[in-house]
Amino acid sequence: MHARRRARLRGAVARSGIDALLVTDLINVHYLTGFTGSNAALLIVASDSEDNTAGGASATERSQFCTDGRYTTQSAQEVPDLPRLIERPCDVALLRRAPEGLIGFEARSVSVADHMTLLTAAHDGPLDIELVPMLDLVEGLRAIKDPGEIDALQRACAVADRALEDLIEAGGIRPGRTERQVGLDLDQRMRELGASDPSFETIAAAGANSAIPHHRPTDAVLAAGDFVKLDFGATVDGYHSDMTRTFVLGSPADWQREVYLLVELAQAAGRAACVPGATGDQIDAAARDVIGDAGYGPQFSHGLGHGVGLQIHEAPSLARESPSIMVPDMCVTVEPGVYLPGRGGVRIEDSGVIRADGYHVLTQTSKEFRVLA
Amino acid sequence: MHARRRARLRGAVARSGIDALLVTDLINVHYLTGFTGSNAALLIVASDSEDNTAGGASATERSQFCTDGRYTTQSAQEVPDLPRLIERPCDVALLRRAPEGLIGFEARSVSVADHMTLLTAAHDGPLDIELVPMLDLVEGLRAIKDPGEIDALQRACAVADRALEDLIEAGGIRPGRTERQVGLDLDQRMRELGASDPSFETIAAAGANSAIPHHRPTDAVLAAGDFVKLDFGATVDGYHSDMTRTFVLGSPADWQREVYLLVELAQAAGRAACVPGATGDQIDAAARDVIGDAGYGPQFSHGLGHGVGLQIHEAPSLARESPSIMVPDMCVTVEPGVYLPGRGGVRIEDSGVIRADGYHVLTQTSKEFRVLA
Repeated sequence: MHARRRARLRGAVARSGIDALLVTDLINVHYLTGFTGSNAALLIVASDSEDNTAGGASATERSQFCTDGRYTTQSAQEVPDLPRLIERPCDVALLRRAPEGLIGFEARSVSVADHMTLLTAAHDGPLDIELVPMLDLVEGLRAIKDPGEIDALQRACAVADRALEDLIEAGGIRPGRTERQVGLDLDQRMRELGASDPSFETIAAAGANSAIPHHRPTDAVLAAGDFVKLDFGATVDGYHSDMTRTFVLGSPADWQREVYLLVELAQAAGRAACVPGATGDQIDAAARDVIGDAGYGPQFSHGLGHGVGLQIHEAPSLARESPSIMVPDMCVTVEPGVYLPGRGGVRIEDSGVIRADGYHVLTQTSKEFRVLA
Repeated sequence: MHARRRARLRGAVARSGIDALLVTDLINVHYLTGFTGSNAALLIVASDSEDNTAGGASATERSQFCTDGRYTTQSAQEVPDLPRLIERPCDVALLRRAPEGLIGFEARSVSVADHMTLLTAAHDGPLDIELVPMLDLVEGLRAIKDPGEIDALQRACAVADRALEDLIEAGGIRPGRTERQVGLDLDQRMRELGASDPSFETIAAAGANSAIPHHRPTDAVLAAGDFVKLDFGATVDGYHSDMTRTFVLGSPADWQREVYLLVELAQAAGRAACVPGATGDQIDAAARDVIGDAGYGPQFSHGLGHGVGLQIHEAPSLARESPSIMVPDMCVTVEPGVYLPGRGGVRIEDSGVIRADGYHVLTQTSKEFRVLA
């Protein structure tokens, strides 16, 4: 699996006109090798014909993995199929072993300070090396998930679904509890169900706080008549689920029902627009137009969605001016919202996968208007 | 408090010969403003005479804070004492409002890609601006803690102490449990005692695994005769505690007692060397020599310690070749270890504060040789 990913990357590297790529973003290193430690780098050489299998590095194999002494044992287990170097700092160690020519580096994650160190190393070395800033070579590959990744996302979504359903059945979302209690309860349930962690800091927002798109849970007490908005996810095997559901406590008011049904409609329109070939801004517009036509355009103040995977936010982007083109096996969220300051807000969000025939929802919790307690 | 920190930074900025500093590292922004959101930047202008108090920005006040529309309300509450800009991207928005001259940026956290964007913005603007890479200006201030920070660290250490003692009293460290169960139990106790999170992924390592300095908990089962090494901490109000204790299950062997007492001695020597004026490498050597003299030098494979605060690892460094000079109110860990591959290892670690009269331990759990179960 990792060898296949590296082979795809070698193709992208060759097409970019560089001779090798120095991969220093740790999540990208993990994606390409399976390594889970906190310090490593990888050199991918375009001309390598194939990854060596265990022990069979050919004389021309120049792709190499590097980590430091804390991870000697771990890296031998996790990265058995690449030549391994134990040296610090990893980026400089690999650059010294790079082939002559144009060596790309990841311009979004290499700091200016690290770049200076690399420039010095390239300059002091015996070879004629030129460093070339590259953007999103690995991120582009990561946007399209392989079956194992989709399976991990599905399991992460299932943990979140189950945790929320258990929380509701246990009466955990009721007047008198604080936002913080509800959020911690949900986090704890996800951990007990197998999540290594929540995907991000869980949002639990009640009443007027539900009108704040990114609200951090407080000691505010849930009350009858409140919207309760929960935006949360589970991390399973490194993959992040992302889901938002909004409920009403007690007797809903007419405006609450109206706003909810509008967002539900917009979310369905967004999902329907998630087909191969559509662009990020077209999909965003499909949902945004529904809300705009109802006169709530200014109250939908954020983008429609984003890729999910090894990071909670990754490519592609579903937002105004996003040129990303949808391709089968991309995994994205669809999450429109309407926020009425001082009163409350609704967001409905799924994580799902784009297939040839459209968007398949991975988060299974019902999106019907739901009154609790 | 934040105004005082910014005043100190303005002094450092002026001494560096630059006209302003663009602070983009989010932890540094938090340190200087109190802002807790996920996107912000700060421009500190050397010539500003003082921070304006609420609403009283003088005509010459050029220091400014910037965040995006998600944080309009939150930033008004958290950063009431600085002019606020709501714009995206924050770094470019602030650079456009910088004074003419040399504008420093944080070279360790600004990526090459963001640097290119800043260069373009500086070039396209009407003013004569030159961007200058700077290292550790804010990190240098952060290394010396003010009383509120030391208080937060003390509370973070107290949570970790209490969680460990409760775990032991509840019989939570016993043969038959897995490393993972012990780690999760400890994490859960810290959360219930008020930690927002563990300081880092808790290390629970039993038997031969205790010889791996950075071991991730597995389903390995604790057994009589094992060393059990726990390295963990609590995050309280953003500050991170860090502590390691090593226990023996059942009847200790002579070699276990010997190795333990050696590490205990080395740790005491390290603590004794933590006095104002000492350098990081001198303190490291004080502990390392004890272990080396006993013939275990190669088995102590990492540095002696590091600063703790808003990050789990920050300045200063206590390690070979570290030139950091100790100053009162620095908070550092002291954590020697001896690791015998295939058999087991011991690490003993405190977090503490350097005062005029030496090292004051903040982690209060006993370091005496302790046999459990």
